[in-house]
Amino acid sequence: MTINYVIGMAATAAFAMSGVLAVARKDMDVIGLTFMGVVTAIGGGTLRDLLLDTPVFWVVDFNFVWIAIVASLLAFSFERYMRAESVLLAILYLDAFGIALFGVQAIDKALLMEFSAPVAVVMATLTAIGGGLIRDVLAQRQNLLLSHEIYVSTIIAGSLLYLGLLGLFGKTLLTSIGGVGFTFAFRSLAIYRHWRMPKWLTLPSHLNG
Amino acid sequence: MTINYVIGMAATAAFAMSGVLAVARKDMDVIGLTFMGVVTAIGGGTLRDLLLDTPVFWVVDFNFVWIAIVASLLAFSFERYMRAESVLLAILYLDAFGIALFGVQAIDKALLMEFSAPVAVVMATLTAIGGGLIRDVLAQRQNLLLSHEIYVSTIIAGSLLYLGLLGLFGKTLLTSIGGVGFTFAFRSLAIYRHWRMPKWLTLPSHLNG
Amino acid sequence: MTINYVIGMAATAAFAMSGVLAVARKDMDVIGLTFMGVVTAIGGGTLRDLLLDTPVFWVVDFNFVWIAIVASLLAFSFERYMRAESVLLAILYLDAFGIALFGVQAIDKALLMEFSAPVAVVMATLTAIGGGLIRDVLAQRQNLLLSHEIYVSTIIAGSLLYLGLLGLFGKTLLTSIGGVGFTFAFRSLAIYRHWRMPKWLTLPSHLNG
Repeated sequence: MTINYVIGMAATAAFAMSGVLAVARKDMDVIGLTFMGVVTAIGGGTLRDLLLDTPVFWVVDFNFVWIAIVASLLAFSFERYMRAESVLLAILYLDAFGIALFGVQAIDKALLMEFSAPVAVVMATLTAIGGGLIRDVLAQRQNLLLSHEIYVSTIIAGSLLYLGLLGLFGKTLLTSIGGVGFTFAFRSLAIYRHWRMPKWLTLPSHLNG
Repeated sequence: MTINYVIGMAATAAFAMSGVLAVARKDMDVIGLTFMGVVTAIGGGTLRDLLLDTPVFWVVDFNFVWIAIVASLLAFSFERYMRAESVLLAILYLDAFGIALFGVQAIDKALLMEFSAPVAVVMATLTAIGGGLIRDVLAQRQNLLLSHEIYVSTIIAGSLLYLGLLGLFGKTLLTSIGGVGFTFAFRSLAIYRHWRMPKWLTLPSHLNG
Repeated sequence: MTINYVIGMAATAAFAMSGVLAVARKDMDVIGLTFMGVVTAIGGGTLRDLLLDTPVFWVVDFNFVWIAIVASLLAFSFERYMRAESVLLAILYLDAFGIALFGVQAIDKALLMEFSAPVAVVMATLTAIGGGLIRDVLAQRQNLLLSHEIYVSTIIAGSLLYLGLLGLFGKTLLTSIGGVGFTFAFRSLAIYRHWRMPKWLTLPSHLNG
């Protein structure tokens, strides 16, 4: 539990920082930016808990909000040093780790509450992308559903693999590492190789439609 | 129950297809489009269930999500054949049937939970338009509240008529058909005759305000 | 209780009117505008109740929706007379009173449910700004998080002061008045003096970033 908790905190902080940096060009003040960082970090898990009808995790344990606030303030304070390509890339990979971890945690939570595997996969997806979607809507920014990035696919694939591992070996540290590792590796490859959805899986915009 | 269930599934599929086609010009990939289709189909009912504090219908019965996914994938696959005026029109009428049916179902659900008639009307409205609103927000698209279509009016009018029928005759197959039929007919007329809100019920935009 | 109830109703009406007037230039019809007014008035409290996992206040007592509908229809009907600077200013101050009052009420509600002080402050903030955020998203309008107004700061400061007063003197009429009065005064000053966030608390937009 404790190691899970620490890692969950780290992922929350990473999500918050990536959230602040994503909207840093929107000419916002520290309060608006912190709001965006916190929403990015805890928005997806909030959606999950509302849909599963279970107490919202940060209302129960406010430390998740504190860490998101601190991480957002740090990102605000050091934003000028974080515009370097290398830092932005590091945050992309941190975000990849975040979705991998939040996905596995969401599946564990849903299964523990005796929901079915498909519900668990939906919750993993919503936990991973929900916060970013809410942030982008509030910041009047194009969200990832409108891009062709390989993002949601990695969460779904990782969730299916993790469910398979759970079925084969049960819940162990290794299955968790396998689930997190696969999603992280898949998403990292997509970042590293600039993968985009193939054309036949995309509808062209009909400019003269 | 069984016939209701089948019809509910058909309406869900229709909503999902209309949802995909509505955003088909946004240059999205199959995952983004399917997400939009599913959100359109189940978003309104999700809002209703959260507000009524009852388990979310698709978390309980995931078949609603499956049918929405399949319908969305079909709409994606055959989108090029669905651009014809006649198909788009057919989908408009399917959507009209969907809001009529979802409205009556929402009222039944709210009354069964012993909420008041006004709450039931609000739930009918939110169930019918909620999914489309969320989709349009996510797709950065103008939603129906910003248009002058006769849409919400038909749901409210149909809900009031259905409540009247319930008061007069109780819950029978005929009252349900009456409620669904009225909303469907009213909305269909609005589509067929291109009805728009009269000017005196509209605020002009003050270009030089 | 009764005086609180009446004041809550007045604040709800003020929020609804300000909500309608805020989007009055969007070329909407009476139903869309009323929807926006109602969402502005009850959206924040709805978020609060969902997050606290308590029955949504207006589902329990529909009078809050009625008053919001009536206020919205009034704002629609008399909109042409409400464009005067003086009226818009009056509505700004009404809104200031609304956030002050809703903030204190949200804190009372959260503490009564035995949530911690930080959770209570978050709920005060969300209750005050949630409705306006949802309205602006639906109306494709820039929300207050993207502005540099001194708005959220006044709610947070007022909430902290109110919590301090509660700790010192307990829940009395005077502590409530102190909490509402401080937020209202702070926000009113921000309106009157056109305060904006200082530059060092704002990230510049990087036009050539």
